[in-house]
Amino acid sequence: MTPEHEIDEWLRGAGPEEDTVVCTRVRLARNLDGFSFSATQSEDEAVTLLATVRRTLSSLAEELSWTWVDIGDVSELDRQVLIERHLISRELSEGHRSRGVLYDDSDGRASVMVNEEDHLRLQVFRSGLRMEEAWEVADELDDRIASLLPYAFSNKFGYLTSCPTNTGTGLRISVLVHLPALVTSKEISKATNAIQEMNMVVRGLYGEGSHAIGDLFQISNQRTLGESEEEILRSLHSAVLRLLDWERKQRREFLQNRLFVEDRAYRALGTLERARTLSSEETISLLSALRLGRILGVMHEPSLESLNQIFLLTQPAHLQQSVGRELPPSDRDLLRAEMVRRILS
Amino acid sequence: MTPEHEIDEWLRGAGPEEDTVVCTRVRLARNLDGFSFSATQSEDEAVTLLATVRRTLSSLAEELSWTWVDIGDVSELDRQVLIERHLISRELSEGHRSRGVLYDDSDGRASVMVNEEDHLRLQVFRSGLRMEEAWEVADELDDRIASLLPYAFSNKFGYLTSCPTNTGTGLRISVLVHLPALVTSKEISKATNAIQEMNMVVRGLYGEGSHAIGDLFQISNQRTLGESEEEILRSLHSAVLRLLDWERKQRREFLQNRLFVEDRAYRALGTLERARTLSSEETISLLSALRLGRILGVMHEPSLESLNQIFLLTQPAHLQQSVGRELPPSDRDLLRAEMVRRILS
Repeated sequence: MTPEHEIDEWLRGAGPEEDTVVCTRVRLARNLDGFSFSATQSEDEAVTLLATVRRTLSSLAEELSWTWVDIGDVSELDRQVLIERHLISRELSEGHRSRGVLYDDSDGRASVMVNEEDHLRLQVFRSGLRMEEAWEVADELDDRIASLLPYAFSNKFGYLTSCPTNTGTGLRISVLVHLPALVTSKEISKATNAIQEMNMVVRGLYGEGSHAIGDLFQISNQRTLGESEEEILRSLHSAVLRLLDWERKQRREFLQNRLFVEDRAYRALGTLERARTLSSEETISLLSALRLGRILGVMHEPSLESLNQIFLLTQPAHLQQSVGRELPPSDRDLLRAEMVRRILS
Repeated sequence: MTPEHEIDEWLRGAGPEEDTVVCTRVRLARNLDGFSFSATQSEDEAVTLLATVRRTLSSLAEELSWTWVDIGDVSELDRQVLIERHLISRELSEGHRSRGVLYDDSDGRASVMVNEEDHLRLQVFRSGLRMEEAWEVADELDDRIASLLPYAFSNKFGYLTSCPTNTGTGLRISVLVHLPALVTSKEISKATNAIQEMNMVVRGLYGEGSHAIGDLFQISNQRTLGESEEEILRSLHSAVLRLLDWERKQRREFLQNRLFVEDRAYRALGTLERARTLSSEETISLLSALRLGRILGVMHEPSLESLNQIFLLTQPAHLQQSVGRELPPSDRDLLRAEMVRRILS
């Protein structure tokens, strides 16, 4: 049942502000000079693009021990696993033209999607709030790729992208935060509105708005043009810190009624330990209550590592991968409950 | 935390039809010749009545090792404990005139309430469906008391009672049944209507109608006049058997979806094992799901004995008695959760 790789960086659950921040992701959108952008790209061009990128980056990939995957060559299930590991997007998985991904399979700290909406999408993950570090690593990777492949760049606009919302820096930083106290206290709409007024985008990791499953939200910059990378980092950083303060204030208020937090967390544990069938959504919600209980110190088990393990391994594709075949949802729910019990016992 | 007495007969959970029937109770309403009935009784008469009954029945009480309690002499909490043991009624506990009870403290199999709505209310309990046996024991007890105290009796109406609905035989037989499958499948209203059409009374042990907490219902005869005791027994017996068949049919249908029953029972167990605060109502509901799981064989723990123990000991007055003082409801809920965890661990 253990996956072949270590737990991925984005779910490692250790890093600055780990009480509230799951991980930081930096994404750069880049396109290659001399190739049509996706809107007008033919399949022939896509094949050529893929071959060019793969060949040109092969020594870099070898040096970094990265893995190349031709998306057209792998099963639906394998693609779903990569999505659940956050290494590729749903768009890359579902695209029609040739496409691929180069990624660090050992710890999932970075990937380069090829022929998604843009020719290249570089992603770097760091657990906790590590915007500066993630940005520096992405920037260095970007420089190395730029030295091998000529980017489409305009002195006036900056990096050119398929969709104008990415043009300029091509930079999108996302911080994945866990906001159970804001959700439970129903302060979440107020909080996300305040962040949106700071020109940041807030969305649930799963589900939408205040119904985000598992109380997990992604905060990212909206603007990519007209601001330097440093300015984007700085303003997102201050928006995120404001949100974390808000969440922590609510958590302190929660602790005024310690029994409520404790009872909720322990009941979640009891359900996870005993249920015979668990949907993905319910599992994530129960993990959220447990995580809050652990972080607020009202309980001392289970370890955050096992919560992260449950989170990762009970996702639909990971579950199916563990038994080596596709399963209907009802069988997945059975298997999920079984795996949860095994991890917790 | 163990009570001084053994688990009471009504909750012993062993006897004929124990999969569905918790216990059988026979109650006889009797009044003494020469004393005013409750509607016109003065406190002086009540005192005399109580003293007369106590004195006259003292050797019988000694022979049976029964306990006499003068209700006016005991605390509210002690009265509540007797109510939870089903040995006295709420009416006896809350009455204003002198009143008392003679009961078998060792196993709670019988009691005689003195100066409730009628001068005497004899009660006999047997676990499972044992109408005949309970009736015979009550009948014998009734004969012995009748030989010591002259009953108010009319050749035309039979035993005279305070309220005409009890006149005649003065006999009320109640069977306490557990109908989780009928409740869950929403067949319960149809089933109870059918029983009511057979002139039987159906009510929740706690709560009303289809919202009976813990899926526990009492079925009893409505008529006391114009039928012999044997006829009352026979017609109630056939009504109860009909209900049990209906419940069992639903249970068999449930087992078509074994996972549903199993999941529900195990989730109830997980909540009982882990919750930090449990209301009385929630506890009884969870026990109902667990009991069904155990009886249908989808789980092999915990024992039915420990479920009965939880049922009895976590009632509000029993809980407070265990710590020797009155507690506000929120503290009871904490203590209840703690006691449940202890019994289950």
